[in-house]
Amino acid sequence: MSVVKGLKCVNCGKEHSAGLIYNCQKCGDILSVEYDYEQLLRINTKAIFRRKQGLWKYKEFLPITDYSKVVSLDEGGTSLHKCNKLARRMGIEELYLKDETRNPTGSFKDRPASVAVSKALEFNAKTLVIASTGNAAASAAAYAAKAGTKCVVIIPERVPTSKISQILTYGALVVKVKGAFSNAYELARNASQKYGWCNVTTVMMSNPYQVEGDKTVSYEICEQMRWKVPDWIAIPIGAGPLLVGVWKGFVEFRKLGLIEKLPSMIGVQVESCEPIVKAFRDGKSIVEPWPLEPKTVAGGVADPLRGYTQDGSLTLKVIRESNGLAASVSDQEVLEAVMDLGRNEGVLAEPTGAVAVAGVKKLIEEGKIPRDEVVVCLVTGHGLKDMGPVANLFKDPPTIEPDVEALKTCLARALRGRTLSEGHFNKGGPWRH
Amino acid sequence: MSVVKGLKCVNCGKEHSAGLIYNCQKCGDILSVEYDYEQLLRINTKAIFRRKQGLWKYKEFLPITDYSKVVSLDEGGTSLHKCNKLARRMGIEELYLKDETRNPTGSFKDRPASVAVSKALEFNAKTLVIASTGNAAASAAAYAAKAGTKCVVIIPERVPTSKISQILTYGALVVKVKGAFSNAYELARNASQKYGWCNVTTVMMSNPYQVEGDKTVSYEICEQMRWKVPDWIAIPIGAGPLLVGVWKGFVEFRKLGLIEKLPSMIGVQVESCEPIVKAFRDGKSIVEPWPLEPKTVAGGVADPLRGYTQDGSLTLKVIRESNGLAASVSDQEVLEAVMDLGRNEGVLAEPTGAVAVAGVKKLIEEGKIPRDEVVVCLVTGHGLKDMGPVANLFKDPPTIEPDVEALKTCLARALRGRTLSEGHFNKGGPWRH
Repeated sequence: MSVVKGLKCVNCGKEHSAGLIYNCQKCGDILSVEYDYEQLLRINTKAIFRRKQGLWKYKEFLPITDYSKVVSLDEGGTSLHKCNKLARRMGIEELYLKDETRNPTGSFKDRPASVAVSKALEFNAKTLVIASTGNAAASAAAYAAKAGTKCVVIIPERVPTSKISQILTYGALVVKVKGAFSNAYELARNASQKYGWCNVTTVMMSNPYQVEGDKTVSYEICEQMRWKVPDWIAIPIGAGPLLVGVWKGFVEFRKLGLIEKLPSMIGVQVESCEPIVKAFRDGKSIVEPWPLEPKTVAGGVADPLRGYTQDGSLTLKVIRESNGLAASVSDQEVLEAVMDLGRNEGVLAEPTGAVAVAGVKKLIEEGKIPRDEVVVCLVTGHGLKDMGPVANLFKDPPTIEPDVEALKTCLARALRGRTLSEGHFNKGGPWRH
Repeated sequence: MSVVKGLKCVNCGKEHSAGLIYNCQKCGDILSVEYDYEQLLRINTKAIFRRKQGLWKYKEFLPITDYSKVVSLDEGGTSLHKCNKLARRMGIEELYLKDETRNPTGSFKDRPASVAVSKALEFNAKTLVIASTGNAAASAAAYAAKAGTKCVVIIPERVPTSKISQILTYGALVVKVKGAFSNAYELARNASQKYGWCNVTTVMMSNPYQVEGDKTVSYEICEQMRWKVPDWIAIPIGAGPLLVGVWKGFVEFRKLGLIEKLPSMIGVQVESCEPIVKAFRDGKSIVEPWPLEPKTVAGGVADPLRGYTQDGSLTLKVIRESNGLAASVSDQEVLEAVMDLGRNEGVLAEPTGAVAVAGVKKLIEEGKIPRDEVVVCLVTGHGLKDMGPVANLFKDPPTIEPDVEALKTCLARALRGRTLSEGHFNKGGPWRH
């Protein structure tokens, strides 16, 4: 049973039926899926929560009407790690990681992909198109492979090779486009219009259904924390669909009486591309496109928003509505967060995936997050997706003869550093322990 | 409640108490953990199966006595995918993948690591040592990080850089050793003896506890297939602890009356290093060390067994006992299997992880697996761990202007191949579709 009422414009409020529409036909802004909450209130949620973990356990809250069309690789149902060591290191009492690295293709993008590709099949789409800087394309390609649907992937020139190989192995057709991401974004829109391909780009202006996948993150957090909502949820943001989706999930669960309060949302960007943070700081309500070409180790959040600043403005609105915060971090802080996650918690994040952790560390130091409040950081992508920037920090390990004495000498040398593995770092490595 | 009776030698039968012992103190062979099955029979297994999925739901069947020492990153509880398209492609009716890529560090080795590191903490070990070709070291390093224990990793010279960076990010001390894996293996043994470090090398001759982690794979398969045991379980094998562990799990569940039959075990190696397959083919019961230095895209199974052929002989014994099969595949067949998994099922395997799929394909073609029998293939490691060999197959995607016409021209060129993405392959790519 689906209880979707339709699509509603977040700007002008115009209502549309839940068809293959990408944005508001009146004002062009973002559409949001509306549900019949009266009907949802009558659902036996206890039965839902007893189901096996994973995104589709919440199918009644997702915009699918024909469940036979669902394409799943067992996305979602990811771990929530209580991180005592990292909490101590940051000087905070209670810190959790929502570990989205555990999704099938290694990033949270499998959630929106599972919903968007399933919905595309409902619309009888034969070919999907997506513009992406890497992770969303890998997800779309994987779900298209599982579904047996064609997938055209349009990426900007500078995407890490490991991500491209991943997309190609799923059998998608990959084309690189000159210039910034906005070029890829525009081309996907145009090709979708011209050839009737279903556009599954994870920009809110491009597809109103994918955000519904993102919101299952908050459903899971509610369950995993036994309905005690954390004070803060920190998320790496480019355009911010994940943050908007996660917020929507909490709002819905409060509407249904499942939780009593809402968290404050923290959006974290990188200093070299911080359009949403800038608008937040300047007290603006409209986000301006970022004028520069971003250069950062965290490519997944470096989004200048050219062509869809509406996404940024909606994300900003949600942050404010939630009494949240926006912050940006340097590349060095991001790489420190990657190392903090690995060494203290055994969690391997790609640089983009560690951006929220870096932001929370900074906000605690600045006194903006009280030390006795509960924080959940989303770790959005697996380190194996982009080991380049981290690999650069390390020296090649020493090669020795297979001999205990040689091992002892080698260890003694390494142990001259303050920690066991300090000896591994290139001189001038970016942190002190 | 733990029901461990002790450790028993698989060769001479000598019994030992379940302490920090690595192999039989009488004959030097492999030790196996023995349980009090009378007591296990009295356990309320229904309550166990209702628990949240993951390795530690089966804690009563694992050799831990102090549960406060358990180190977990939510390993196990991995997906079982029913693969209709791949089954059709292989000409078989029912095929499943047990998707071990979904473990925290990206391989099944997180299961033995979680058990071995927890057990090491029970023994109050302050430093762990492991010899590994990559994946087991990444797992040990991650669990050591979570536990706050030191970890010394000894690897042979030729391990992919991405795997080394992963291990270093978890904060382990990594040393490369000249020569083959056996050198690293011996050095870990010697260092363990000399310095009192706990050896968590995942060779059965090195640590009797880690195999217990592997056996949870079969517990999960039993639950996921609703207690209908498949006819065949295919597993990539080097020394074979995973195969031995999985078999042990099925045998235990039959002892407890939870399942009625046992599967036949298939061990798959690569042609350039097939000591167990050779002994199987030659009708021998003792596996000989492989004389050559293996060169293959599937480094994780290329194990010459020098110094611990007992592991190979036990694996061989299990294969025979189960009325199973042993087969080896070429590098080309392995890479074809990687592509088959990606394109048909949206599952990204590293070459080593796809070895079982390649073997099953071959055995079906040879008529050794009847087409109406049910097969489960273990996919042991995530593709992102080792994208090099697959990346080499692809041409760099074409770069175009951001223009619908340019996209059309480019697609038309690619589509001249027989499938959408054929245009991506280097000339002389290894397969035909």
